Amino acid sequence: MAALPRSVLVTGSNRGIGLELVRQLAASPQPPQHIFATCRDPDGPRGKALRALSAQHPSIRLVQLDTVDLPSIRRAVQVVESCLEGQGLNLLINNAGIGSHATLQSVDSQEMLAAFATNVVGPLQVAKEFLPLLEKAAKGAQKTGLSCSRAAIVNVSSKVGSIGLCLGVLEAPMYPYRASKAAQNMVTRCLAAELRDKGILCTAIHPGWVKTDMGTEQAPMTVERSVQGILAVLGSLSQETSGAFLDWEGNSLPW
Amino acid sequence: MAALPRSVLVTGSNRGIGLELVRQLAASPQPPQHIFATCRDPDGPRGKALRALSAQHPSIRLVQLDTVDLPSIRRAVQVVESCLEGQGLNLLINNAGIGSHATLQSVDSQEMLAAFATNVVGPLQVAKEFLPLLEKAAKGAQKTGLSCSRAAIVNVSSKVGSIGLCLGVLEAPMYPYRASKAAQNMVTRCLAAELRDKGILCTAIHPGWVKTDMGTEQAPMTVERSVQGILAVLGSLSQETSGAFLDWEGNSLPW
Ligand SMILES: NC(=O)c1ccc[n+]([C@@H]2O[C@H](COP(=O)([O-])OP(=O)(O)OC[C@H]3O[C@@H](n4cnc5c(N)ncnc54)[C@H](OP(=O)(O)O)[C@@H]3O)[C@@H](O)[C@H]2O)c1
Ligand SMILES: NC(=O)c1ccc[n+]([C@@H]2O[C@H](COP(=O)([O-])OP(=O)(O)OC[C@H]3O[C@@H](n4cnc5c(N)ncnc54)[C@H](OP(=O)(O)O)[C@@H]3O)[C@@H](O)[C@H]2O)c1
Repeated sequence: MAALPRSVLVTGSNRGIGLELVRQLAASPQPPQHIFATCRDPDGPRGKALRALSAQHPSIRLVQLDTVDLPSIRRAVQVVESCLEGQGLNLLINNAGIGSHATLQSVDSQEMLAAFATNVVGPLQVAKEFLPLLEKAAKGAQKTGLSCSRAAIVNVSSKVGSIGLCLGVLEAPMYPYRASKAAQNMVTRCLAAELRDKGILCTAIHPGWVKTDMGTEQAPMTVERSVQGILAVLGSLSQETSGAFLDWEGNSLPW
Repeated sequence: MAALPRSVLVTGSNRGIGLELVRQLAASPQPPQHIFATCRDPDGPRGKALRALSAQHPSIRLVQLDTVDLPSIRRAVQVVESCLEGQGLNLLINNAGIGSHATLQSVDSQEMLAAFATNVVGPLQVAKEFLPLLEKAAKGAQKTGLSCSRAAIVNVSSKVGSIGLCLGVLEAPMYPYRASKAAQNMVTRCLAAELRDKGILCTAIHPGWVKTDMGTEQAPMTVERSVQGILAVLGSLSQETSGAFLDWEGNSLPW
């Protein structure tokens, strides 16, 4: 990432892409001063790898944040605010998400609503609650224009959430996941429109098909490579790409 | 509508666009043999206008159908199936929907999930449960190719659900409504891809901004004119426009 933000928050950072985002941010030559590595259960068995990582990097701060639990989001805002000591939060990465392979035959309303709750409502609520801190970063910035080092919301989306590409890539139906990611893209775009004048960038990023629990071992790309790409793209984001849908190589995807 | 289907089902047909769809279908020179006018409460006060209309047209059959209640959908399938006496259902119009004007400030997770339940999960569940009857119509048809008179699912969508247009039309934020209609468009497109080989068309239609309870009196268009347009567009749908997003005049909208 070209100019690293001073502070970054990542949701769902205990495994997969989120964990690797935290790892690469912390290991960069000039790491952000504050890396808020959030997850549902930082003290439990699922937080083990993240705890080990944070033990090596004083910039990493573990924060409990369940994206579908509003009190949890609000508690995380308070923790982050007090750590930032009057500064704003530069970059929020909404990475937490759940998959769903339901077909037309197997889909049920509970599975669909769970996908919407985690993949759409969660990122929106997190953005909403952290907005005061993002606004503070935007106002406090030396620079004008939009960038991830000033103030930004990055929503980790998916190519299978592209409605335009859907007819071509329907090998896997995944109704709940696809519908939720399309809805999340709409939220990204609404936020980009609404927050532009406040100096806050908002962009959707497709990480590629990546070897994680969600992507499975079948995926062609390592999580290291995906995150290298994502961080390079984040460093390049500007006014022109706020409201865009880009992949990990910076290619634009159709809605 | 050019060649009218033999049987049509409309959800949310007790008022607004749904009621006018039933009215114009029943009043056409060669009306469908079966018009299943469904709504949540056909016998209650909200069903009054629909009951009055059906009293004038023997082709209209009132059927209870709450699109977010699976047992209700399944009971409706049984009623429709027995009325059709071994024939399939040609055209399913998923019209029922709810609005929401929530802004970033006012939005909460319950309002978002309610919009997803009614505007996305509902149409998908209705499509899924009526699929055997649609497949029967597709198989039993004299004609090949895709059309509303053979077998079709039409999802009433909205231009404000266009992610591509969103940056330009954000006067009204409507996060839950916009996100739900974008997700519904994804469902339309997945269904179009999945059901094409079964001879079933699936298309999303934007009715325009229409004077109904949802559209309000401020809307520029009467419900009569919108529905005239919609029915003309439905009559023109084919293989090429299955999976498309069209407005009431047949113009293509971006996802
Ligand atoms: N992998 C791919 O190929 C691929 C492709 C396209 C898009 N994506 C997107 O990339 C993002 C990360 O995916 P991944 O591959 O890293 O998935 P993953 O390995 O399954 O990890 C998902 C992460 O999200 C967290 N999470 C889920 N629900 C949460 C909640 N309510 N609150 C907080 N955290 C929650 C999980 O935490 P727990 O450990 O507590 O469950 C976990 O840390 C997702 O948004 C996904 O849709 C992935
Ligand atoms: N009007 C516009 O300007 C406009 C613009 C774009 C798109 N649309 C879309 O057009 C469609 C019809 O809208 P409208 O303007 O006619 O709205 P409306 O006047 O508010 O009517 C909505 C209809 O949907 C029904 N409905 C809601 N939830 C339902 C459920 N769970 N089960 C069954 N029926 C349910 C309502 O029934 P109850 O009476 O029982 O509530 C009512 O019949 C909607 O999908 C809407 O999103 C409208």
